[in-house]
Amino acid sequence: MENINIIISGYCGKMGRRIAALAWEDKQLKIVGGLENKGHPLSNEDIGEIIGKEKLCVYLKDNLEEIIKQSDVIVEFTNPQATLEHLEIAKRYKKAMVIGTTGFTPQQKGEIDKAGEDIPVFISPNMSQGVNLLFDLTKETARRLDENYDVEIIEIHHKFKKDAPSGTAKKLAEIVAEARDKKIDDISVHSLRGGDVVGEHKVIFVTEGERIELVHKAHSRDAFAGGALEVMRFIAGKEKGVYTQLARMPVEKPQ
Amino acid sequence: MENINIIISGYCGKMGRRIAALAWEDKQLKIVGGLENKGHPLSNEDIGEIIGKEKLCVYLKDNLEEIIKQSDVIVEFTNPQATLEHLEIAKRYKKAMVIGTTGFTPQQKGEIDKAGEDIPVFISPNMSQGVNLLFDLTKETARRLDENYDVEIIEIHHKFKKDAPSGTAKKLAEIVAEARDKKIDDISVHSLRGGDVVGEHKVIFVTEGERIELVHKAHSRDAFAGGALEVMRFIAGKEKGVYTQLARMPVEKPQ
Amino acid sequence: MENINIIISGYCGKMGRRIAALAWEDKQLKIVGGLENKGHPLSNEDIGEIIGKEKLCVYLKDNLEEIIKQSDVIVEFTNPQATLEHLEIAKRYKKAMVIGTTGFTPQQKGEIDKAGEDIPVFISPNMSQGVNLLFDLTKETARRLDENYDVEIIEIHHKFKKDAPSGTAKKLAEIVAEARDKKIDDISVHSLRGGDVVGEHKVIFVTEGERIELVHKAHSRDAFAGGALEVMRFIAGKEKGVYTQLARMPVEKPQ
Amino acid sequence: MENINIIISGYCGKMGRRIAALAWEDKQLKIVGGLENKGHPLSNEDIGEIIGKEKLCVYLKDNLEEIIKQSDVIVEFTNPQATLEHLEIAKRYKKAMVIGTTGFTPQQKGEIDKAGEDIPVFISPNMSQGVNLLFDLTKETARRLDENYDVEIIEIHHKFKKDAPSGTAKKLAEIVAEARDKKIDDISVHSLRGGDVVGEHKVIFVTEGERIELVHKAHSRDAFAGGALEVMRFIAGKEKGVYTQLARMPVEKPQ
Repeated sequence: MENINIIISGYCGKMGRRIAALAWEDKQLKIVGGLENKGHPLSNEDIGEIIGKEKLCVYLKDNLEEIIKQSDVIVEFTNPQATLEHLEIAKRYKKAMVIGTTGFTPQQKGEIDKAGEDIPVFISPNMSQGVNLLFDLTKETARRLDENYDVEIIEIHHKFKKDAPSGTAKKLAEIVAEARDKKIDDISVHSLRGGDVVGEHKVIFVTEGERIELVHKAHSRDAFAGGALEVMRFIAGKEKGVYTQLARMPVEKPQ
Repeated sequence: MENINIIISGYCGKMGRRIAALAWEDKQLKIVGGLENKGHPLSNEDIGEIIGKEKLCVYLKDNLEEIIKQSDVIVEFTNPQATLEHLEIAKRYKKAMVIGTTGFTPQQKGEIDKAGEDIPVFISPNMSQGVNLLFDLTKETARRLDENYDVEIIEIHHKFKKDAPSGTAKKLAEIVAEARDKKIDDISVHSLRGGDVVGEHKVIFVTEGERIELVHKAHSRDAFAGGALEVMRFIAGKEKGVYTQLARMPVEKPQ
Repeated sequence: MENINIIISGYCGKMGRRIAALAWEDKQLKIVGGLENKGHPLSNEDIGEIIGKEKLCVYLKDNLEEIIKQSDVIVEFTNPQATLEHLEIAKRYKKAMVIGTTGFTPQQKGEIDKAGEDIPVFISPNMSQGVNLLFDLTKETARRLDENYDVEIIEIHHKFKKDAPSGTAKKLAEIVAEARDKKIDDISVHSLRGGDVVGEHKVIFVTEGERIELVHKAHSRDAFAGGALEVMRFIAGKEKGVYTQLARMPVEKPQ
Repeated sequence: MENINIIISGYCGKMGRRIAALAWEDKQLKIVGGLENKGHPLSNEDIGEIIGKEKLCVYLKDNLEEIIKQSDVIVEFTNPQATLEHLEIAKRYKKAMVIGTTGFTPQQKGEIDKAGEDIPVFISPNMSQGVNLLFDLTKETARRLDENYDVEIIEIHHKFKKDAPSGTAKKLAEIVAEARDKKIDDISVHSLRGGDVVGEHKVIFVTEGERIELVHKAHSRDAFAGGALEVMRFIAGKEKGVYTQLARMPVEKPQ
């Protein structure tokens, strides 16, 4: 098991810190850089100390190019603009990138797709293992149950969440729409907000006589950060291309 | 679309009647016989009138051998003993059989497996489309989530249900046990009983930070009877063998 | 236990028929009349035979005034206009009325309130015992949990339901709004539609660290029709006034 | 608003630490002592520093008698034996006590009841506001729905929880049993264990045609610790007696 050297971009955000804390304990992933926007108050601080650990003698930077060489994977939890700038640099240096940033325009998504021609890029609004399984189970269910099954998607998140529906709920709607040759707008999504709920998603398929419900509940942000770690392990050393899901439905043979 | 001639064994039971009522309206399935145990009070009554429809001039019988020739498929919702007797006859006449009966001993199951060497046999404790999808989704999930995910199965049924856990819950436990190389007794199943709940099953996979829940809810017995009709259509004309699920996970290729 | 003579208005509708069928088996409630709009195809048919029972020698009418004298309670599952016309007649004859009709304008509601000055009137969008308990539990919870608890209401009904949100969900929102001195529009209600779901309502109160969920699920229309029977027993012989709930939360006193 | 001086017994446990951290930020509650068993490794350490705050110049002790005088309320999250020893001291010094400890024998419970003749004692297996509301809603529901409603209680907790059913689930069963004049053993409780679920309880009342579900979900231990703070505020200055619930259902009166 070889080490994988990672740079965390958006280091001081909620996700950045959790990823750093989990990677700190990890035997394979090694943090070799932390990135924040220019003028960040913790600029040049030790990135070990930033997350309450011992000195790492690695300092928070604002320029990816300065530190990219020693890395294998860059993980982004920032904003679309910063992410695309870093993506250009990653292409030049042939480094893999993991994108957890959300809110890209279709055109920006196009740029990410193009980057996949040069480097391995993993992009997902939610990297928890459970949510990615939910994506697959939803695809499978949407394929196998015909349009006599009405679909409803519900999500609940804490009251401070800014976007509604969540990126994850949008992707679930996309998956259903694609499986049914429909527009995403034809799939109804209900967004509930309240308290400190980390995040729950439910997809309901309901017809005369019965109902299937697929549910994911996150108990803590660790579900997401832990998923990002798995993704980094997955993407390191992969062929170029755009990846959106870690695990695949296994091959099965007709009976 | 050719007609499929069916014999319903256990004709006057709850499931037998619902299957008969649905098959009555079906364009492809044609009821050619109804079977009950010897001495049944409705013996020799018109099986159309028994379910409140017009005369069909086909009468309730107690001997499968008398009526089997004109049939393509026999569907059984009776008891293990009657089912196995009928299975012997079906083997002799090379007819397909659909078994919804539950409560077989391992030895009796062995006999059913052997019958599969001669005729197509479909056996399932629950033939609703949704529950069969739940079986597949549970298998998939149990394979992909490792043992860090604890599994709990819950089912709720009406208060008159005699067996606990339900046959469906047992099969879910079996699926999980098999995927994890465990004994079925290692999987905990919780059986709730109350009111007139038709039937609900939930499989929970829970770990640090997150949870997946797979749920099926039956609103009416039609979900089960409708599933049995689909199974009859599926099994008619199939190769010999023992079949347990209608639909298969589609073949998918590695990325 | 004295008999209560009832007239069912909207006799041939889904709810009318279910109420008739249940009242048929009831020891105290006696059907003395059935009402439908003028020109109804079953006009003057025997109301026993209409619901598949024996002849009752009572015939379906279109004029309440003709049959009201012998009744104690009129139960309405019709439309606002017919209901208000019948209400006028009930006032004149001093008969109790149970209103399950929905869709009244505020002005029409005013007329119902005024009728309460003359006769006992019970009005509710949902008379199931469980839903009425849900109303009370929601009121109690909304009073005891302050505004740090965000509220979300979800309902799911069959895909043929015309109104959204359901009358029951609207009343739940009203109850929360009143308890919190808010407008009903400040309470968010999510309406899901699909399959043949009879009706489910959930009220969520969620804050930092915890959540309370109050849920009602109807398995069959009998829950509603059975509730209407209870309401008729309750209203018969009551003082004039407008009643909206069968059971009351006990009077509050400081500890 | 006067200060309330509190001693936290079981200071270094999960609940003790959370209570200390929340009380630290509280304007009314003032930590004047922390208690642990003899020989505890943090003995005589500063109780501010123990929870990662500034020095408080108050040190972890093992003898309640030494520090009780300056306190108003002692809160116990320890074991039955330690709790009863401290209760004796509290009686002698006429101090209020809040007991979150669980696992008392009936005889030990008798001693707590007797202490209520001398001092105010609050005892509850779960002090979250939501769970206490759930207790009341369950009592109300159990009273109003007769025995045609079957009752099922389900709880799910993290896999490290030692007792099953949880103290909270037992109390829910007790409440239902009492409302129905039954033994607690007649109420079925299902205990699920898995992952890091903080704690969820569901009480189902189900009959022909419908179902009521009352649910509490804790997202974090703060729900419990925050409840303990409320209880301390409630008990300070109360009359002697044994208290088990913060909020009361209003006094019942016939309509």
